[in-house]
Amino acid sequence: MENRLKPMDAEQLREYGHKMVDFIADYYKTIENFPVLSQVEPGYLRNLLPDSAPNQPDSFQHVLDDIQTKILPGVTHWQSPNYFAYYPSNSSVAGFLGEMLSAGLNIVGFSWMTSPAATELEMIVLDWLGKMLKLPEDFLSAGQGGGVIQGTASEAVLVVLLAARDKVLKAVGKGALGKLVVYASDQTHAALQKACQIGGIHPENCRLLKANSSTNYALSPELLNETISQDLAHGLIPFFLCATVGTTSSTAVDSLLALGKIAKDRRALVQALSTNPEYLKNKASQANMVVDYKDWQIPLGRRFRSLKLWMVLRLYGLENLQCYIRNHIKLAKHFEDLITQDSRFEVVTPQIFSLVCFRLLPPDDEHHGNKLNHELLDAVNSTGKVFISHTVLSGKYILRFAVGAPLTEEKHVNAAWKVLQDKATALLGECLG
Amino acid sequence: MENRLKPMDAEQLREYGHKMVDFIADYYKTIENFPVLSQVEPGYLRNLLPDSAPNQPDSFQHVLDDIQTKILPGVTHWQSPNYFAYYPSNSSVAGFLGEMLSAGLNIVGFSWMTSPAATELEMIVLDWLGKMLKLPEDFLSAGQGGGVIQGTASEAVLVVLLAARDKVLKAVGKGALGKLVVYASDQTHAALQKACQIGGIHPENCRLLKANSSTNYALSPELLNETISQDLAHGLIPFFLCATVGTTSSTAVDSLLALGKIAKDRRALVQALSTNPEYLKNKASQANMVVDYKDWQIPLGRRFRSLKLWMVLRLYGLENLQCYIRNHIKLAKHFEDLITQDSRFEVVTPQIFSLVCFRLLPPDDEHHGNKLNHELLDAVNSTGKVFISHTVLSGKYILRFAVGAPLTEEKHVNAAWKVLQDKATALLGECLG
Repeated sequence: MENRLKPMDAEQLREYGHKMVDFIADYYKTIENFPVLSQVEPGYLRNLLPDSAPNQPDSFQHVLDDIQTKILPGVTHWQSPNYFAYYPSNSSVAGFLGEMLSAGLNIVGFSWMTSPAATELEMIVLDWLGKMLKLPEDFLSAGQGGGVIQGTASEAVLVVLLAARDKVLKAVGKGALGKLVVYASDQTHAALQKACQIGGIHPENCRLLKANSSTNYALSPELLNETISQDLAHGLIPFFLCATVGTTSSTAVDSLLALGKIAKDRRALVQALSTNPEYLKNKASQANMVVDYKDWQIPLGRRFRSLKLWMVLRLYGLENLQCYIRNHIKLAKHFEDLITQDSRFEVVTPQIFSLVCFRLLPPDDEHHGNKLNHELLDAVNSTGKVFISHTVLSGKYILRFAVGAPLTEEKHVNAAWKVLQDKATALLGECLG
Repeated sequence: MENRLKPMDAEQLREYGHKMVDFIADYYKTIENFPVLSQVEPGYLRNLLPDSAPNQPDSFQHVLDDIQTKILPGVTHWQSPNYFAYYPSNSSVAGFLGEMLSAGLNIVGFSWMTSPAATELEMIVLDWLGKMLKLPEDFLSAGQGGGVIQGTASEAVLVVLLAARDKVLKAVGKGALGKLVVYASDQTHAALQKACQIGGIHPENCRLLKANSSTNYALSPELLNETISQDLAHGLIPFFLCATVGTTSSTAVDSLLALGKIAKDRRALVQALSTNPEYLKNKASQANMVVDYKDWQIPLGRRFRSLKLWMVLRLYGLENLQCYIRNHIKLAKHFEDLITQDSRFEVVTPQIFSLVCFRLLPPDDEHHGNKLNHELLDAVNSTGKVFISHTVLSGKYILRFAVGAPLTEEKHVNAAWKVLQDKATALLGECLG
């Protein structure tokens, strides 16, 4: 039993850590061999694993074998160069190293004192990010702004909504919750609707204003003003507007300047989310000398998140990151060019970032267009050679091609287009046959 | 520029991954050389780092050097064997490997189809966990139960509160939000209060019932019944009881059986948190053939979380994990024994799990007891040799000694006790002098 895995041991961590690095590197080396979209059936894993935890330890090699033979077939490979669905969730070498270090140090950064570096590095690199995005000065931590890395975008929307809700309820009294109204376009991510559900905003007071092709699916400032006026006339209380830069369906950009002045003030956020139990009290926090990120987010606990962003920014540098993003946009442009050369297809919305919205034109009756494109999506994804997703715009079923996986090159875009053309040819042949 | 880091590259990931494994293994090897509680001053890092992101990439070695010289001094070492504060947040070799793999695959598991293995493995290992805890059958996924790994315990409390809120509001109408009442003991974690704030429960309807030493700080079922009766008589609507097994301050255990029947039904949860936007629709979800964990949690996105739990359970096995926990409890018992041998100290609550609540007895006036123990805490923590935290029970300032870091052995407990005794001697000397 000398080789038994200890709870923690530097040399065992080294030995097995090296093996896991090799396993992951080999995964990336062979990632194109897997179907991009997993082709397993619901419930496939239940029969492959025992129905209770083992009493005795298993060997590391046995676990790696199971990952290869049982887990990987059930993985949809988001890092595959042939992944074009939803939006990409890019890994990178630097990001992976940052994740490793965060997992290795394994601190919990709820208060400044529980690891000062975790809070301070996050404040610093989010100021870096604010400057990269050329945000106004008052978004930075020196003023009443300052950044925080939320667990997910959904949480970011939620905490801002809660801060606004509690700020207005403090002024008008908490019995007025039923009068609060939220505004956004109907292209806004479902995270907003979920945030409203959680925050107790009445569903009938969530105004998801119709956006259409006349504004390229951006929110119309005129329609917004009109709706707000009506609500005010009815005694309701407009309190929250959610504008989007790059909607989920089609990367539509709401016109921020036309919609109003933005200011996020961190005090409202902290007021809505702060707790101060005795067991977490400490000198630095009590003296208001520090930021405690627990009061900027839903959870108490938090990882050392900024290490990842910091390492990505430092190990690539701004110019490389700009090139990287521009290359994805160029590849999307290239894909759009390919589509326009095939008259059987149409581009539905102008390509802005690295997403192309398009569809196969129905050969006869427009009513068959949705079914046709749905079938094309299924046919393409079930080859395993490529994974794309869909949306619906103005009632039309639209295919989405989002470029951005870290290994994607022009050849992958061309190959994906070939799959789409071939499947379209087969489908249209069936239609005509 | 041949060595420039690529966005993703299997061989670069291998090369730098190995270096990072060695860096982390070396960290664990030398972890006892650092002060457990970071001794830096607020704002220390701002002057050590540039105020904007670099345009050109930096070298990996330079980043590692900065981590060693600038970041690690600002880290509070939660994995140090001399860490006894709050509750431990254990890393382990197996857990670290699971984190690496999760970061390597880097999938987003919001819907079943976005990586079937992520959802199915989570369902399976949480059934394993349910069986390990000997939960009733209807907590498992075969019935109306089933588990999910939330990001944090705070989110777990919140989603259950939201599910209960929306279930009762569906029955009584959403205008009744102001009448809903939540019950718990005043020893309950602040996450409950935060969940109530977020969910819009009126603060005056959060009944945090006083618990005292007569019940070892557990919630009194009699007091609960009495309070509920009064609230019902006033037309309020009791809808949520939060019981705790192991409170944060003193590991008090609320008597679950005396408090009522527990059933968590996953349908109420999904009803409260479900969204179904067009761009996420897919065959398997529409046919109700699968679980989509996005509807069981606040965020949309989620990591491949279950890999970590699965690897911990498999690589250690049940019996080892039981021994591991029992050893921590034994070490806490050992610490309690040490205290009882020194008449200057008292144990405040009976040691149940691996936490000991104790304090230094004030030599003369009881009124100085709180100040004395606060000073003792600061004196001990500023040595950097050990990190403990505090709480307040029935108005008394109490020191908490929580055993559980993965590298902690009896010798570390003894050394910590020596530091406490020495600092107590010095402080009492000052009192008398």
